Amino acid sequence: MQPISDKEWNHFKQKHEDTAIMLITCPDRPGIVSTVSQYLYEQGANIIQSDQYTTDPEGGRFFMRIEFKQNRLQECWESLNQGFAPIAKQFEMEWKLVEACKRKRMAIFVSKEDHCLVELLWQYSAGYLHADIAMVISNHLDTKDMVEAMGIPFYHIPVTKDTKQEAEQKQIELIKGKVDMIVLARYMQILSPTFLQDFPCQIINIHHSFLPAFVGAKPYERAYERGVKLIGATAHYVTEELDAGPIIEQGVERVTHRDDVDDLKRLGKQIERTVLARAVHWHLEDRVLVHQNKTVVFP
Amino acid sequence: MQPISDKEWNHFKQKHEDTAIMLITCPDRPGIVSTVSQYLYEQGANIIQSDQYTTDPEGGRFFMRIEFKQNRLQECWESLNQGFAPIAKQFEMEWKLVEACKRKRMAIFVSKEDHCLVELLWQYSAGYLHADIAMVISNHLDTKDMVEAMGIPFYHIPVTKDTKQEAEQKQIELIKGKVDMIVLARYMQILSPTFLQDFPCQIINIHHSFLPAFVGAKPYERAYERGVKLIGATAHYVTEELDAGPIIEQGVERVTHRDDVDDLKRLGKQIERTVLARAVHWHLEDRVLVHQNKTVVFP
Amino acid sequence: MQPISDKEWNHFKQKHEDTAIMLITCPDRPGIVSTVSQYLYEQGANIIQSDQYTTDPEGGRFFMRIEFKQNRLQECWESLNQGFAPIAKQFEMEWKLVEACKRKRMAIFVSKEDHCLVELLWQYSAGYLHADIAMVISNHLDTKDMVEAMGIPFYHIPVTKDTKQEAEQKQIELIKGKVDMIVLARYMQILSPTFLQDFPCQIINIHHSFLPAFVGAKPYERAYERGVKLIGATAHYVTEELDAGPIIEQGVERVTHRDDVDDLKRLGKQIERTVLARAVHWHLEDRVLVHQNKTVVFP
Amino acid sequence: MQPISDKEWNHFKQKHEDTAIMLITCPDRPGIVSTVSQYLYEQGANIIQSDQYTTDPEGGRFFMRIEFKQNRLQECWESLNQGFAPIAKQFEMEWKLVEACKRKRMAIFVSKEDHCLVELLWQYSAGYLHADIAMVISNHLDTKDMVEAMGIPFYHIPVTKDTKQEAEQKQIELIKGKVDMIVLARYMQILSPTFLQDFPCQIINIHHSFLPAFVGAKPYERAYERGVKLIGATAHYVTEELDAGPIIEQGVERVTHRDDVDDLKRLGKQIERTVLARAVHWHLEDRVLVHQNKTVVFP
Repeated sequence: MQPISDKEWNHFKQKHEDTAIMLITCPDRPGIVSTVSQYLYEQGANIIQSDQYTTDPEGGRFFMRIEFKQNRLQECWESLNQGFAPIAKQFEMEWKLVEACKRKRMAIFVSKEDHCLVELLWQYSAGYLHADIAMVISNHLDTKDMVEAMGIPFYHIPVTKDTKQEAEQKQIELIKGKVDMIVLARYMQILSPTFLQDFPCQIINIHHSFLPAFVGAKPYERAYERGVKLIGATAHYVTEELDAGPIIEQGVERVTHRDDVDDLKRLGKQIERTVLARAVHWHLEDRVLVHQNKTVVFP
Repeated sequence: MQPISDKEWNHFKQKHEDTAIMLITCPDRPGIVSTVSQYLYEQGANIIQSDQYTTDPEGGRFFMRIEFKQNRLQECWESLNQGFAPIAKQFEMEWKLVEACKRKRMAIFVSKEDHCLVELLWQYSAGYLHADIAMVISNHLDTKDMVEAMGIPFYHIPVTKDTKQEAEQKQIELIKGKVDMIVLARYMQILSPTFLQDFPCQIINIHHSFLPAFVGAKPYERAYERGVKLIGATAHYVTEELDAGPIIEQGVERVTHRDDVDDLKRLGKQIERTVLARAVHWHLEDRVLVHQNKTVVFP
Repeated sequence: MQPISDKEWNHFKQKHEDTAIMLITCPDRPGIVSTVSQYLYEQGANIIQSDQYTTDPEGGRFFMRIEFKQNRLQECWESLNQGFAPIAKQFEMEWKLVEACKRKRMAIFVSKEDHCLVELLWQYSAGYLHADIAMVISNHLDTKDMVEAMGIPFYHIPVTKDTKQEAEQKQIELIKGKVDMIVLARYMQILSPTFLQDFPCQIINIHHSFLPAFVGAKPYERAYERGVKLIGATAHYVTEELDAGPIIEQGVERVTHRDDVDDLKRLGKQIERTVLARAVHWHLEDRVLVHQNKTVVFP
Repeated sequence: MQPISDKEWNHFKQKHEDTAIMLITCPDRPGIVSTVSQYLYEQGANIIQSDQYTTDPEGGRFFMRIEFKQNRLQECWESLNQGFAPIAKQFEMEWKLVEACKRKRMAIFVSKEDHCLVELLWQYSAGYLHADIAMVISNHLDTKDMVEAMGIPFYHIPVTKDTKQEAEQKQIELIKGKVDMIVLARYMQILSPTFLQDFPCQIINIHHSFLPAFVGAKPYERAYERGVKLIGATAHYVTEELDAGPIIEQGVERVTHRDDVDDLKRLGKQIERTVLARAVHWHLEDRVLVHQNKTVVFP
């Protein structure tokens, strides 16, 4: 695999040039869509895609994602933001406006298992991952060569029971201000609440079970014990409670009595990487909004 | 199974009371969303769900489906329509406004195989099918008792090579002005172009293959011959060209070398009824728009 | 729907005439397959299908299902059994020999929700369910007409907290010696250990979640709360521990944030009936063997 | 990614040590299973897994795959084969006996698209592919670095209309006697009949459609045109007739009107690599038997 080529990168930029994404959540009430779309029209924007959802048209919460083209987006960026501020205030909106062609900076944390990392690196090299992989951090050395072969910085930070706090400190120093999101691509360490505070809904984990079944350790062993006929994987945002954060995506694969624990692990890897990559994809394209402990995904 | 109960019917009405669906297609250009949503806001409408799609933001075709609540919808129905007419004209829209709680009148055509019919009748009895089944027409008598037990009129119109035209004439007399759509629930006769003209994009057929594979007769036999590892079914609008109309939904099921033609047929029935029911569901809720020979489905 | 026709029944009998199924489990060791197949060959049998599985070739447990044709099966039935007894003893086998064309007698227990019942009745009427539905027992009257319309006895046995024991007594009187298996087709009462003792691995339940997630009551409500992206259903043998018996089959369906609890229930019904029917099918064809708390399924 | 480690390789060898696979096809008639299993028992073999299939118990064709353990397999290899020859003759068998731990030698042909190659290399590095990748041959240079980084020989053989015959000659020289099978991992050249003759049922291709739909060139473009709701991929053995060889495996993925041709290609890659890898996997483990133009797969 090779780093994304200039050609791919230009293709990406061209496709997303002058494109912005507006994300909005607010209490639902009449007039939101018309006010927002009126505003965008007056700015000369052309809406490409628009998705919305309300938990309840009467007194619920409203979610919206609008993708639009705007000529010379860079030039009018500030006025676009400033002009919208009063509307946002009027409707009590949480909102943000992002440039579609501005790639998010990603750190990938990984332990020994490389399948999720390989998937992300391949998608990156194919130009499918709208991100800059700023670095890979691992508590093992297994994936070092592969990462560095693609010109991506690799940091080896071993973690033991005693050095955990220190190790996290090193990690934070490396990523602070340098990355916008973290992907735990089968990183087998639990991050501390302190760590998590700095990345609210910006850390995506892949859990190797169909949550909420088999929360915690050794899910494939326990799936085997229980004799399930489907195994699964779950991509979710990391929160303080283990494996209990908002679910972004899930997938399953059929298994039979013939499959032993090794088989489940092997088959599971296929689901894990697919499900994780899809969740990362959606996150990078600002398609995921979080509501209480659930996600609204506009795919 | 029993006809939909008054309780279910009231539940349905309550849920969809004062709810309207607006369907729009027009050439894409800036200002459509803001104009439409502004109009609805001024009428006092509250948008519940809104979906849109453009084939190309520059010079493409635009599709939109808006579901909204409007107090005392019946009273303002006419003014709502009249007020929108100038906007529609301005943007060269094809459009329609439908009341969500007004159930479409459906005729089901069936031959001997009853699995698709049973599915539709069960969904109907469960209150899931937002339609009135006005009648069932069959060239055989096999399903007569089941249909009549639910209080639905059943018409037996045999079809032979020689009586085909005459039979269609009888069918047309029965349905003319009485039904809004027709479901071919494994009706093994080809409808004439004359018949089709009266129901543009209002006739849904289920073809027992994964189109465009195995167009025409005996698809399961041919799937068996070819040794495929998945069999499928396709729900599509009927057009003059056999099995070539706009596809609404497709599904597949895994098969193995052990499955003979009888097994494929049995397994296929599961897919056929599921796929057909989903397509009918979407059509009834005005979620399907047709563009050239393809569908835009807002599920 | 109509009861299975004589034509279908004859078709079934013809297909399974002179066909027997031998089920074997025993400690694994060399020579089992050759001894069994040699025995069948000497009796003049022709093996149609044979499946086997061992948990471990060294010291594990061996499972086998053989389907074979034998001319004038009825006449040699006794000698076939007697001749095999010494072999079974030698290898410490648990075994049974069943006639494929002898349909098992089934009781269906149901409460108010009819989707699983409708599925089983349809499969029965289509000749796909190799069983005689001896009776339907319900604690409600909702499905009475449908059942009786097919000529199947329907017994209404209401259950309250106070009458539970008495109700079970009535049920046992009805089924004792009359049925070989029970299907809980969304029967919303928990059967007592006393009841279960009489039907070891002969009672199949459909649980409306992807077990072991959401064990117990209100799984769809809890799936909605948790924000899962797939919902599922699980068919399992009933044991004393609630929702913890051997899993026979599982299925899932994709859902989104748009789906409320009602939607999950509606979508879930599709999975429930499919999964249950598949499990019942396999059980009826003696394709399921139980090992500890897991199943070996030879589909 | 790194070449399979000694540790993995040893794990593989240990698992498959003293294990053999016997593949048999012959006219069906009574006594095959008992004769074969009796023979193996007499040799001291312990059957681990056995699968069989008959197209028709009366006058059909019989297929069998037996996996068994035999102490000191190497030593008795010749006698095992010789002793079986008379049995094979008696039953008119086509048969072969293979050592499970003897990895097949594989050549991978690839053009520019690397996703299928990356998948195979990853599976190889993870120890999941029971093969030695002897070489990669490409008509382009895009994948050279990745292949050589894993220590696998890479041969660049450009192909133009005029040099096609010459290029094939070079390929044949490279692989003749050096490889047991070829995987066309998105190799966009059609192999000549001459080439194919040397590798009957040993060349696996991945076609980027759900065959028999969209045979030939540009399947995604044509799938887009037709408006299908599922796209697929098909792994099959290569025969002289384009895209018409025996199908080994198929898979599909759901798409919507929103997906343009680029999206279909991107989504399709996921299916292609999964389906191809599964087919290669089965082929390497001698789980695929060919019958006329269809496969019998014992997974």
